[in-house]
Order: sequence, then C-alpha cells, then structure tokens
Amino acid sequence: MVNETYKAMLHEKSVIRELSEFAAARGKEIGYGNVFDFSLGNPSVPCPDSYTETVVRLHRREDPVGLHGYSPSTTIPEVREAVAKSLNARFGMEYTGGHIFMTSGAAGALAHALRAVTSPGDRVVVFAPYFPEYRPYVEGCGAVMRVVPADTKAFQINFPALEKILEEDVAAVLINSPNNPSGVVYSEETLQRLANLLREKEKEKGHDIFLISDEPYREIVFDGKSAAYPSRFYDNTLSCYSFSKSLSIPGERIGYVAVHPQCKDADLLVAIMAQISRGIGHNCPSSSIQLAVAQVLEETSDLQVYETNRDLLYDLFTDLGFTVVRPGGTFYIFPKALESDAAAFCKKALDYDLIFVPSDSFGVPGFLRLAYCLDTEKVTRSLPVIRRFVEEQYPDRR
Amino acid sequence: MVNETYKAMLHEKSVIRELSEFAAARGKEIGYGNVFDFSLGNPSVPCPDSYTETVVRLHRREDPVGLHGYSPSTTIPEVREAVAKSLNARFGMEYTGGHIFMTSGAAGALAHALRAVTSPGDRVVVFAPYFPEYRPYVEGCGAVMRVVPADTKAFQINFPALEKILEEDVAAVLINSPNNPSGVVYSEETLQRLANLLREKEKEKGHDIFLISDEPYREIVFDGKSAAYPSRFYDNTLSCYSFSKSLSIPGERIGYVAVHPQCKDADLLVAIMAQISRGIGHNCPSSSIQLAVAQVLEETSDLQVYETNRDLLYDLFTDLGFTVVRPGGTFYIFPKALESDAAAFCKKALDYDLIFVPSDSFGVPGFLRLAYCLDTEKVTRSLPVIRRFVEEQYPDRR
Repeated sequence: MVNETYKAMLHEKSVIRELSEFAAARGKEIGYGNVFDFSLGNPSVPCPDSYTETVVRLHRREDPVGLHGYSPSTTIPEVREAVAKSLNARFGMEYTGGHIFMTSGAAGALAHALRAVTSPGDRVVVFAPYFPEYRPYVEGCGAVMRVVPADTKAFQINFPALEKILEEDVAAVLINSPNNPSGVVYSEETLQRLANLLREKEKEKGHDIFLISDEPYREIVFDGKSAAYPSRFYDNTLSCYSFSKSLSIPGERIGYVAVHPQCKDADLLVAIMAQISRGIGHNCPSSSIQLAVAQVLEETSDLQVYETNRDLLYDLFTDLGFTVVRPGGTFYIFPKALESDAAAFCKKALDYDLIFVPSDSFGVPGFLRLAYCLDTEKVTRSLPVIRRFVEEQYPDRR
Repeated sequence: MVNETYKAMLHEKSVIRELSEFAAARGKEIGYGNVFDFSLGNPSVPCPDSYTETVVRLHRREDPVGLHGYSPSTTIPEVREAVAKSLNARFGMEYTGGHIFMTSGAAGALAHALRAVTSPGDRVVVFAPYFPEYRPYVEGCGAVMRVVPADTKAFQINFPALEKILEEDVAAVLINSPNNPSGVVYSEETLQRLANLLREKEKEKGHDIFLISDEPYREIVFDGKSAAYPSRFYDNTLSCYSFSKSLSIPGERIGYVAVHPQCKDADLLVAIMAQISRGIGHNCPSSSIQLAVAQVLEETSDLQVYETNRDLLYDLFTDLGFTVVRPGGTFYIFPKALESDAAAFCKKALDYDLIFVPSDSFGVPGFLRLAYCLDTEKVTRSLPVIRRFVEEQYPDRR
C-alpha cells in the first residue's frame, strides 16, 4: 500500500503556496506586474557574476571526471577546508574542515543536524514565530516539537516561557536569526542569556542540550551592522547555513552544517551526518556546485535592494499607525494586523491585489508577513495601494 | 545525546571503502598506475561535451534568477515533461510529466520510491547479489529486507526461492538490471515470469506489490543489445534512474523516479514523494543540473571502453579456468573465486597489487567483483598480473 502518513500530508494546505498560486492566477488576469505579491521568499536579485564565471570556468578548465566525480560521503575535503577557513576569519572560530558538512541547502543542513543530535521521542524547542517547515524537519526525525510563544514586543526570546519549557527534558533548541518571518536579528544580549540558560539547564539535567542555529539570512543585515554569530556564545552549537539567499541560488540546494569544535562529539558528528545521508538517499550536494561556492565564499549578490525595500515598507507601516518591529535583516517585515484575525485582514487585502501571508502558520496569531524580495520599483508602486487599502478598510484604526 | 543508532553505523566497516583506501595508500608507495584497483564503480570516461556545453550555455544565456530559482516541490515541470517524452519514445510508454519526479541520483530515487510504497515493518524483497547500500535504503524506511538467494548459475532470478519468500506478505520487490555486481542483464523471460508471479501473488494476497526497478546501468549494455525495460512487463512499477553512469556525472547527483501510468495511485505518487522530501530536507536536485540533463537525454558518454574491458577480462577469466557469467552490461564482472573463502582469495590478490572486492557484502559468498571502469590501457596491463597471481597461487585449480 502507498504510505498513508505521507498521503495524509497531501491534504495539509500550505497557506503560502495557496496565496502564491492565487497571485499567479490573478497575474494572468491583470498582468503579474499589477499583483503586489509579497508571499514568497524567493530572492529577486541575480547571483553575483563571479558565481556564474566560476561555474563556467570549472566546466571549461577542470578534468570532467574529477569535477563530476563522486564526493566522499563526508563531502569534498577542499570545500570543507575553505568553508572552515572563511568562518574562522570572519567569526574568530577554530573550525577545521573536519567540522564542516556540505548539505543540500539549509533544509538539508537542518534535517541532518536534527537527526544527528536527537532520537525518536526527544523534544526539540522552537520559537514562535517560526518557519513552518520546521515541523516536518523535527517530526521527520521522530522528535516532538515544543513551541515557545512569541515575544511580540521585540521578537527576541520570550525567556520566561522558554524557562518553563526547559523544565522538561529537551534534546535541542532551534533558533533562526536573522529571523523569518519577523526580520529581527537576535541581539548579543539575547544570545548570551540563551547560552547561559542552556548551560545551566545542561548542568541541572545532566545531559547535553544542542543549539541548532538556522542562519540562511546571516549575510542580509541592515544599517551597516552584522549579525552576532550564535556559535560564539555556546559550544554545543551546530550552525546551519544556506547560500540560497546570500548568492541568490536557492534552486541549486547548497549549504552546510558547521559543528562547533568544542561541541560534544564534535569529531564524530560529520561522520554521523554522512551515515544519516546514506539511509535517506540524500548523499552529497552536487560536486560542481560544492566546488563553485568554495571559490566565492566572501561574495554576495547585491543585497542593498532589500534594505531599500525595508525602509520603504517600515516607514509606510509606521506612518499608517501599525505596530511593527523594524527589521534588522532578511527580506521580511512582520506588522501587527489591524484586526485580531490576521487571515481576515489578509483576505481583505486580496481585493486590492495585495498578497500578504497571515501569521498563523508561523505559530503566532494576529500578524502578517511581507516578503519584500521584489524590485524596488514594484515595492514603490505598492505603497499607495497599501495606503488606500488601510485607509478605506480601517479608517478608525488609531 | 548524539543519536546512538547512527553512531553505531560508524563502526560498520565498508569492505569496498577499505579496499579503495588500501589502493590509494599503496598507490602512494608504488604509484597509483601500478595498483590495479578494481574496487570502485566510479565512471572513468568523461561526460559528453554536449553536457558541458549545455551547462555553460545555461549559465551564460539564461536569466540567473530563473536558472537558480527554487524548483517546485515536485521538481521542474519542463524537465519532467522532457524525461517523460524521451522514455515514451524509447520504450513505448505513456508517461506524462506528472509521472516523473527528479531526484538526487538513484540513491535519492530509491529512497523516495521505497518510502512512498512501504510503511514501517513492511517487507521488501531484494535479490542476491545486491548493491550493499540497499540495506540502509530499506531499513531507513523502517522496512525489513528479505533476501532471495542468488541464482549462481546465470544470475537471473532464483524463482523457487522467490516463491517461498512471497508466501509472506511483501510490500515491494527491488530489482537491479543490468546488475551490480554480476553485470548480468535480466532477460525478457525473467521479467515476464517475475511479473506473472507478482500479479498472481497480488491476487492471492489481496494487495498491491510494487516493483522498484533500479536502473542506473540501463544505457551500458553490450553486444549491440539493449536492456528490457521492466515497466513494460508490470504496471505497479517505479523505475529509478540515475544519470551518473550514462553521462559520467555521479557527483552531480541527478536522476529520477518514473511512476508507471497504470501504477496504483499513479496520480498521487509524485506528490507523495515531494512530501517525503520535505521531512528529510532533501527537496529537489539542483535546478541548473535538472535543466541541463533535460537537454541531453538522448546522449551518453563514450561507453564503448566498458565493453572492450569486459571482453579482455571475460576472455582472461575463462581462459584461466574460472567459472564466470559473461556480463551483458554495466562495468562489473563477477567470477567465482578459486577457493570457497572469497575474502581469502582477494587478500592473496593484494600481494600482486590486484584490488578485487569479495562478494560477501553483496549477499552471496564465494565470488569477487571487479569494477572495470578503468582505462583499457590499465586493464591490459593488469592481465598478465592476474594470470601470474592465479598460476602461482592456484596451480591445481582445474
């Protein structure tokens, strides 16, 4: 019989996907340029030319048998070395190639990291608002997801709620900074307090608690700042990265797990992740793409557009009287809806061809996510439309 | 705690990997050209120029945001259409794009196909000799692997033994033709008899039995022949393919599952496999590589070298008095060892810098596998060495 568990998953509707399909269909009626589709986090800027040139050069100059040959099960040694070196220089770490495991994007990184440090039945803590795909990753390991309610004031960490959940035994804690969907970057204070609390709980419970740090937006930070690197604060950290957003190559499925050199079983974890890959038939990411990103580790797409868009939207939403935290990075903004039912709010916006995602599937009610990885021209055109929608539908909002 | 199940897997020694590492180390002592390393099934011929040119052209000419954008969860529609069209033309099938799911090589294909049609505890039948990675794929689904003993005369199917196992309830049967490690191609008679038996058992047991057909060597068939296409014989077939061997791009991790249009739940299975990918963080293979292979579906590397090598080795082994079935395809040959302990036989060969893999890890004792994906020059140089080894060590072999 066809597997009933997976078959049942077909009936779970993805709100984001439905909205994105609605936007595409509406685009066919009135032209996609006239649909203000803020639903999908798909990078809108091209990859840097250096990435393209690297791929072309590798294919033109390298021996094809080597370029396209099997990677070792722990992925390509010189690529792992290059990633370690780059992280050490940027964040003052002491990784060796042995701590790096190349993966199929952040999804592959998270799925491997979670399987490596949990066993079926273990508890994994996530923080609302959270990326909805965390649930299949956690439950795919047979682990149980425990959600810390949101700190809706600042979208840092709701520590009283976290402390309560940590009274239970917990195998791992999964954070995401800069954050999808809030756009917020965790402060050094937040990371330090989290690290202190986890160390205290490790001692109290007598076992390790691993920190899985999901960092695909690490390079998209605004106002000339950079994001604090969570592994700097806590030894038992597995840092999960994707080149999808920094190089604008989400379809190429390339990222890595960096295991903290002082992490429990640090010398075994990459080999364990290679074993995990065997059973799921995942194996390594594409060899030529591993080799290509290793040559452009310090480069990014031109990410300035996201900051420009952030400014436009943040200024508008504050001007219109929304409660909204100023995003420090990513390409998301997460204003509070003007009525308690965010789905109803977003539904009304559809009449103005404004596609916003209600926050419920991110584990917190009453907000909306806008993904502003769009041309600034389109964001600019959306501003008067958003204003008209809000003024017509919520004239008494203040 | 680090996952103990995966940690325990680290201690399982891979015979093939150990031999390959021995060969590399020995190569450092005497020059790798002097080590006759028949251990690894890594293609030795370059990919066709058309593949390289396609990758370069896509990167030079296509919009990078589109080329490197996220694939839909069911993989790229035009790629799926192109694969369906090609298979229909070659094998008289009636696939649509909806029946095709692009995967990370045959490993990804098998892992998804097996998860889609089994539930934990189900039985999956494999045939000795079998590719050792089948065990992690099957057990990774929570299924139980049942092994049909080898037909050591012809390496077709041992039907009496299969019939006995099919008295139990079985969810799926996994075949591999052309076969690693025997090099044998299943005849039409074998496939017809298998299909008849499975249909009979489906009726008797009152449930579907799926045929998972592992076909990475489909294009490497000798003597001007072609391999019979298993899906032609049995409706409940999921055909699992990899471009690793046909295009010599194993590191790029690209293949597919083709679901027979008359298969049970044929219209759901690709969507189910997409759901499976969510939980394992696998998602789609690289977008640019999906798009590239779709443009070279009818091409292969120059595979003639494998047939030349087959002839050289088969002629030698028969001349030396070995019992050996003539390979009809792949780049493997599987002679009977000259003593009952194949490991002891292969160990003696190491003294002559001949690296053969004993058959035990393929589920059958007493044979050896040679992977002859090597330059013909090297195979030619190995012939007198093999002759000397056999004549010195087994003078009384006839």
